Amino acid sequence: MSIETTKALTFDVFGTVVDWRSSIIREGNRLNREKALNVDWVEFADAWRGMYQPSLARVRDGERPWANLDQLHRESLEELIPRFGLDSLTPTERENLNRVWHRLDPWPDTVDGLTRLKIKFILATHSNGNVALMVNMARRARLPWDAILGAETARCYKPLRRSYLKTAEFLGLSPQECMMVAAHNKDLVAARECGFRTAFVRRPTEYGPNQTEDLEPSSEWDVVADNLVDLAAKLGC
Amino acid sequence: MSIETTKALTFDVFGTVVDWRSSIIREGNRLNREKALNVDWVEFADAWRGMYQPSLARVRDGERPWANLDQLHRESLEELIPRFGLDSLTPTERENLNRVWHRLDPWPDTVDGLTRLKIKFILATHSNGNVALMVNMARRARLPWDAILGAETARCYKPLRRSYLKTAEFLGLSPQECMMVAAHNKDLVAARECGFRTAFVRRPTEYGPNQTEDLEPSSEWDVVADNLVDLAAKLGC
Repeated sequence: MSIETTKALTFDVFGTVVDWRSSIIREGNRLNREKALNVDWVEFADAWRGMYQPSLARVRDGERPWANLDQLHRESLEELIPRFGLDSLTPTERENLNRVWHRLDPWPDTVDGLTRLKIKFILATHSNGNVALMVNMARRARLPWDAILGAETARCYKPLRRSYLKTAEFLGLSPQECMMVAAHNKDLVAARECGFRTAFVRRPTEYGPNQTEDLEPSSEWDVVADNLVDLAAKLGC
Repeated sequence: MSIETTKALTFDVFGTVVDWRSSIIREGNRLNREKALNVDWVEFADAWRGMYQPSLARVRDGERPWANLDQLHRESLEELIPRFGLDSLTPTERENLNRVWHRLDPWPDTVDGLTRLKIKFILATHSNGNVALMVNMARRARLPWDAILGAETARCYKPLRRSYLKTAEFLGLSPQECMMVAAHNKDLVAARECGFRTAFVRRPTEYGPNQTEDLEPSSEWDVVADNLVDLAAKLGC
């Protein structure tokens, strides 16, 4: 475990750094009150996120040209609107709902953990979220990134190899000098295949109380942490 | 002057945000002492920077494939080494000297100015410097960027239009919602042609005491400021 050579931590964001599900449910319930709606936002959040991987796959597989995550989220949203009785939303309201992904709340340990980790390591996003989404989220949630990198700067979606390799290249580092931090085992499998170090962070309620996947590390990752403050401690920060 | 619609400030960095010339001279003079050299680092700094635009032009004009600024700086350095009697430098010492661009000092007003501007505006680099260079500089100088953008993320060098347009696009903004901040009139000419708002910052000693260019605005830019604290005041921060 050559953690000593690690210079940068590259972060998965949705689920690892921010709690997308609770954030969407909270904003949705507010919309219910404001617009006298009766939408089940728990079901809505899970359905919206459920369309995420299939929408990325269509870009990854070349079935459609490049589209950033704001665009993919919006297309999924338009499909969900009739299913959930949201047809009354105006274009402005739809755009605002789509931008809930820019307003996701961090997990309680996130800001403290990142702030400690930043003293010793370069902190970069390596997310499938687009740059604007990540920038707006970071400003609101006070996430102290050194660089916003990921799918849009690499112009391909994880877990394609190019995404990891381009992210290391932008940082001027070898993959071996980067550690991928994620709550998802698959992300770490791809990162390790590219030469990255790996840190698994447990987020057992990312998908709600009945989550079944990614409850535990599926492999011997370089570090396993309960949250980002724990990660900081385990990396000597 | 529709400054009210400005959401992001995009910054030229070399000369506008950091004082490259004094930084190189100071590091060079230290190298003179450490290695018992007798190099004129004032002349060296000006010669190195003098090779900057020609080296960018060869990439812009398609005479050579893409190369980031670290690579271009290094090639220029190798040309200067025999001219300045630096042949005794080892490969490691050459690489360290090349990375002086990662260790440039901010102007005295920079950190205070950026910190104030950040409250109201998204702050992004829009520099010909590569991402790693900008990240390492920002961490050392405590520059509070929200995003590191520019030539390497747009994959072309200013003042090509694509560089400005891609930078706005990454921020999810129209060019009209972005303001280019630069100490160089030519940068602002190109930015305005792309639809950006413009802010000229006076840096009358960027090229030393005998500077002749860019002492004053060459056009009616949206804002003219004496430094970044003055810019913050003029933008109501």
